[in-house]
Amino acid sequence: MTLILGIDPGSRKTGFGIINAVGAKAEYITSGIIRLPEGALPERLKIIFDSLSTLISEYRPITMAVEDIFLARDPRAALKLGQARGAAIAAGTNAGLSVAEYAARLVKKSVVGTGAANKSQVQFMVTRLLKLSAAPAEDAADALAVALCHARTLGTASGLSRGIQYSRGRIKSMPGVGGEQGSPVK
Amino acid sequence: MTLILGIDPGSRKTGFGIINAVGAKAEYITSGIIRLPEGALPERLKIIFDSLSTLISEYRPITMAVEDIFLARDPRAALKLGQARGAAIAAGTNAGLSVAEYAARLVKKSVVGTGAANKSQVQFMVTRLLKLSAAPAEDAADALAVALCHARTLGTASGLSRGIQYSRGRIKSMPGVGGEQGSPVK
Repeated sequence: MTLILGIDPGSRKTGFGIINAVGAKAEYITSGIIRLPEGALPERLKIIFDSLSTLISEYRPITMAVEDIFLARDPRAALKLGQARGAAIAAGTNAGLSVAEYAARLVKKSVVGTGAANKSQVQFMVTRLLKLSAAPAEDAADALAVALCHARTLGTASGLSRGIQYSRGRIKSMPGVGGEQGSPVK
Repeated sequence: MTLILGIDPGSRKTGFGIINAVGAKAEYITSGIIRLPEGALPERLKIIFDSLSTLISEYRPITMAVEDIFLARDPRAALKLGQARGAAIAAGTNAGLSVAEYAARLVKKSVVGTGAANKSQVQFMVTRLLKLSAAPAEDAADALAVALCHARTLGTASGLSRGIQYSRGRIKSMPGVGGEQGSPVK
């Protein structure tokens, strides 16, 4: 059993989703959106950090996956997104989770089958793969999608090489995730 | 006595400086640079978060000041800077510090007297104001400068209105910093 926390960070709302990866299968645990009020940046980053820290201490995932989005926007928007992302990742590393990043195209390819998939296709496939009765909200679906992508990467990596995880095509050791010989990722 | 932690976050190195603001005066406590190794983003953000958390638990500053820089660079660079900034601010709020942001021009104006000051002018004035025997490195000097700017804002605010702090021209209440009647900021 491998509890995976997927995150879709944003400066207005941050989606999260937790799945349990068992071998090649994944089951839904929880998902939702952390909505950030208008206000000073530090307070908003604190909400991201504290909410994720609470979520982690409640569900005890062992690894976190974050989408690495392609940016076509202005530097100011990129800075805001980066700050939300930095606070979210810090919550993960502070709780001892390994953190992996996946390019948005890779997440879509992994879940939908094409890197050019749109948001509703991602929602549809997440709903189907996790056997949900209704589609999660967009940001929560994106978070579940990156968690599913991470689950598949871990699954593939465990078949290829024990105790070594791959992230964005590079080998990346992931302390705390590697396990006993023969079953490195449970 | 008000211990202030100033931060100059960056994706390669993060400068820090701690001063003790006593009334209108400020004394130097410590400063330095957190250098980030090449490597995966989460590990680098963890270094920022952990280093600042250690620094905070060691020196116990009660408030943090961060420079809000003007960006003329590309979105990718802005995202990287934002992530470093997000992790740094999260370390502050997680430790219970109030966090204030100051525009770079305001910091320079406060310390050097002109918002168009260059880095060596900031180094010179920081060295002089804090009576240092040698100039700190650029990033450490920038961190000390934003701490000095924060000290002056707190000092001014305490003279104007008790228990209310100002940040970037807006009134901002700062829990944990306000004090007894007549001496809100020590």
